[in-house]
Amino acid sequence: MKRRNDRNIVVVETHKLRGGALEACSDSLSVEEPLEIKIESDGEVRTVAVTMRTPGNDAELAAGFLFAESIIESYSQVEKITLDRCNGVVVSLKAGGSFTFEGLERHSYVNSSCGVCGKKSIASVLKRIDTSNSPSCSGLLPRPELQSDSFLVDSTLIATMSRSVRLMQSDFDTTGGIHASALFTPSGRLIELREDVGRHNALDKLVGAMLMRKSLPLDQSILFLSGRASFELIQKAVNAGIRIVAAVGAPSSLAVELASEAGITLVGFVREDRFNIYCGEHRIETTRSECSQVPSAC
Amino acid sequence: MKRRNDRNIVVVETHKLRGGALEACSDSLSVEEPLEIKIESDGEVRTVAVTMRTPGNDAELAAGFLFAESIIESYSQVEKITLDRCNGVVVSLKAGGSFTFEGLERHSYVNSSCGVCGKKSIASVLKRIDTSNSPSCSGLLPRPELQSDSFLVDSTLIATMSRSVRLMQSDFDTTGGIHASALFTPSGRLIELREDVGRHNALDKLVGAMLMRKSLPLDQSILFLSGRASFELIQKAVNAGIRIVAAVGAPSSLAVELASEAGITLVGFVREDRFNIYCGEHRIETTRSECSQVPSAC
Repeated sequence: MKRRNDRNIVVVETHKLRGGALEACSDSLSVEEPLEIKIESDGEVRTVAVTMRTPGNDAELAAGFLFAESIIESYSQVEKITLDRCNGVVVSLKAGGSFTFEGLERHSYVNSSCGVCGKKSIASVLKRIDTSNSPSCSGLLPRPELQSDSFLVDSTLIATMSRSVRLMQSDFDTTGGIHASALFTPSGRLIELREDVGRHNALDKLVGAMLMRKSLPLDQSILFLSGRASFELIQKAVNAGIRIVAAVGAPSSLAVELASEAGITLVGFVREDRFNIYCGEHRIETTRSECSQVPSAC
Repeated sequence: MKRRNDRNIVVVETHKLRGGALEACSDSLSVEEPLEIKIESDGEVRTVAVTMRTPGNDAELAAGFLFAESIIESYSQVEKITLDRCNGVVVSLKAGGSFTFEGLERHSYVNSSCGVCGKKSIASVLKRIDTSNSPSCSGLLPRPELQSDSFLVDSTLIATMSRSVRLMQSDFDTTGGIHASALFTPSGRLIELREDVGRHNALDKLVGAMLMRKSLPLDQSILFLSGRASFELIQKAVNAGIRIVAAVGAPSSLAVELASEAGITLVGFVREDRFNIYCGEHRIETTRSECSQVPSAC
C-alpha cells in the first residue's frame, strides 16, 4: 500500500471485474486512521474519544468535536492544541474554566425519567440554543414560529453547489469514498471545505476551523453536506448557528423534525437541476407552483 | 409528520425544485430515533450507549452491539433482552460471568505506549480472533498467509447481489436514505437482511440476529454492505467470522489493510456488471486477465 505524500490517498493493487473477467489494476483509496482526542485540564490529561478519521486538520477536528459535544463553547477556552505523534491530539484548556473530568462522565443527553426519545433529543439540542421549549416525552414540543429573518438564497445557487464542491474536493474523484462539508455565502461563493471518510468528522473539522477563527455563529452561511442528513449532523449545524443546510443525500425523519423545530431550512437530494426542501422554504427564492402529481410520483 | 404504521417511514410535506420552480409535494423519510442500550448485571442496570437508529430489531441491535464491542462473546451469556418503553433496551446478563461495569470503563483499544495508530487498531482486532500477531506501532504487522480455504463464490453472483438487496429492501426505494447489511450463501441465496439509517446499526442488527440464533461464526456466508466499507464495518465482519465482504461503496485504506491482514476477501464498488477486489481474490471464481491500461484509467 503506497501513500501519496501530498494527499490522503493510498494506491493499492486491486482486481477489477469487467465483462466477466478480472483485471489486475491499481486503485486509490481514502486514508482512514484513528485519532485519539485528549483533554488537558489542571495538569491532568485524559482521553475523551477515539474516532476513525482521514488524517489532516486534526486540531480543527478536535476543536469541532469538543464544540459539538458542548465541552467548549468558544475557542477562548482553549490554551493550545498540540498534535501528538502517532494519531493523538491534546486540547489544553485554560485554567479557571468550569470544565471537570467528573462532569464529563455525566455528559450525555440520557437524562430523563422516561428513557430517551426523539422529542427529548430535539429538546436537548434546542435547550442549548436557548429556546424556552419545555420537553415532554409524550407530547409534542411547542413549535416555534419560523424566524422571519432576511437570510435568503437563490434556488439556482443551491442546485449548483454540488458541482462546486465536487470541483473543490481534492480526493473524491480519485477515491469515490470521501465525504465533504462545505460553507457557502448566500451569493454562492465557497468559504471553506473539509473532507473525511466520516461525515461527522468532515463537519466537525469545518466547524472547528471556523471556531478557531472565532467566526461562529455561522448564521450568514449555507452548509453543504455531500451525504445524507441525519439527526447528529443537523444537531452540529444548529449548534454552529447555521440556518440553511443543503445535502446531496436523504434526510432522516428526526433530522427534519429537529431542523423544523430549530427554524432551519433543510434541503435534500441536491442535484444540479433539482432538490427537495423539507422545511424553512421561506429562505429559498424561486418561482412557486403546486404539485399536480400524486405524492409518490413527485 | 405522519408515520406509516407498518413500516419505518414517515410522510412529510416538502417543496421540490424542478425546472426552476418549487412544487409542494409529499415525501417519505426513514425514521431515526435514539436507542438507549442498558446492561443489567448482578441487579444493577447502567446505560452503556445511546445510538441513533431506525426503530425495529432493537433486541438484535443491542445483542449485535454488545458482541461488536466484545462485551459478550456468545448469546448464552445473555439471560434475557427486554424492550423498555420509549426507545430503551435492557440486556440482562447471566450471573456468574466475567462482566463487571468497572471493566467496561477500561474497555477500549486505546491502550498503547505510543498513542493509537492504524496498526494498533488492526492488531487489536486480530488479537480477538486469536492470531499470534505481535503488534508494533512503528513496524508492519507480520502478514499471515491468506488462508487456502475452499470457500469460493462465483463473480456473477456477487455482481447481482446489489439488485437482490434492492429488491428485498423494503424502505430504500421509498426513502432513498437507508442502509442495508445482508448475508448471502455462496450460491447467491439471501439468508437475512437488516436495514437502518446507520451503516453500523444495520450490521449490528444483522450480526445480532445471527448471534441470537447461535449461528456464529458466519464463515460460510458472504456479507453485503449497501454503502462504503470503513474500518469499523470490517472489524465487525472479522469478529463475526465473515470471509467475503462485498460493498456498494468505496473501502477506506484501513478497511483494506484490516481485511488483508485478517485474510478476508474485500470487494468494493459492486454494480450489476462489475466490481473491484481489494484483497483475497482467490475466493472469487472467474476468468482472469491482466489490465493493459494505465492505473488511473482502470
